[in-house]
Amino acid sequence: MQSPLLTELVNALKILPSVGPKSAQRMAYYLLERNRQGAQKLADVLQESIEKIGHCERCRDLTEDPICHLCSSPSRNANELCVVESPSDVLAIEQSGIYRGLYFVLMGHLSPIDGIGPEEIGLPQLEQRLKEEGVEELILATNPTAEGEATAHYIQQMAQPLGIKVTRLAQGIPLGGELEYIDSGTLGQAFAGRK
Amino acid sequence: MQSPLLTELVNALKILPSVGPKSAQRMAYYLLERNRQGAQKLADVLQESIEKIGHCERCRDLTEDPICHLCSSPSRNANELCVVESPSDVLAIEQSGIYRGLYFVLMGHLSPIDGIGPEEIGLPQLEQRLKEEGVEELILATNPTAEGEATAHYIQQMAQPLGIKVTRLAQGIPLGGELEYIDSGTLGQAFAGRK
Ligand SMILES: [Zn+2]
Ligand SMILES: [Zn+2]
Repeated sequence: MQSPLLTELVNALKILPSVGPKSAQRMAYYLLERNRQGAQKLADVLQESIEKIGHCERCRDLTEDPICHLCSSPSRNANELCVVESPSDVLAIEQSGIYRGLYFVLMGHLSPIDGIGPEEIGLPQLEQRLKEEGVEELILATNPTAEGEATAHYIQQMAQPLGIKVTRLAQGIPLGGELEYIDSGTLGQAFAGRK
Repeated sequence: MQSPLLTELVNALKILPSVGPKSAQRMAYYLLERNRQGAQKLADVLQESIEKIGHCERCRDLTEDPICHLCSSPSRNANELCVVESPSDVLAIEQSGIYRGLYFVLMGHLSPIDGIGPEEIGLPQLEQRLKEEGVEELILATNPTAEGEATAHYIQQMAQPLGIKVTRLAQGIPLGGELEYIDSGTLGQAFAGRK
């Protein structure tokens, strides 16, 4: 009934998280009827992002540079390394402002059932960093879920023989919660109370 | 803190209706981390839509053709013309399946305060259609809001001297409601009970 191209656009928008058929329809109409300039900008930036954004060679975070801003910043404390599951977690921790060390982004967590093992989440690379760089404290900030805990446990076992102090975010994070949704204050407490 | 290009992508996504900073962030990560293929499809279809989708010359609905599928369909009843505010309304009415006539899409409603007068919503073009085509019934299906009612009233005044029967969707539409959110059953009732 509707134009085939418009239907295609609605379907393309439906892949976005939390966007159902009705929302996708509204988005398509909004872009074409009321904000073509914004639509063009979105198409351009999306294309450019797909082409240029990859993973930082040091921390695996998303970036358009070989080494991300954070990893190449001279003002960060290289003795502390914080392991998180996703780029959103880096953002959340940075917004809390309490942490001045470096990061390592797993881009997931161990999930043998889905074929996600140590290699897939970059653990060989993390181990190498622990061996070669002067990391004094490894902060395990994976999500407090079963998979996040298992991943943290695995990394702890890996770091132990290297004599590195391993801590885990503790106080303040509600069980089963997702790090990226936690407010800065709570996150700050969790950092301060790490053990 | 975050890569400048990623920030740009988040900002570009924020223009979408009902998408705040947190959602935009999640969308950007999702597209780049978990669904690059979907992201590429979205960028391509969006670009193609911007280039090709315009308005139907007859009904002003969104389409990539000069005349839309509906207007060029020989199975529609050209004696009935239904006036709606937006393409979403056409879609909603089509989904109810009760109407077999043609449409005219205003792409808005009269709103003098915003500088939207008769010309902006295509009324000269509608008047011409009413004069030249054998329209027997003009169904005013603008939203039951103050602006929608005012627009319907204006069109009614315009059609009266031409001796065309003018009806208005009535029964079943809740006051202040938006047509596109109304379920098919209610919409069907409103059509059947038009007066
Ligand atoms: Zn980095
Ligand atoms: Zn048309």
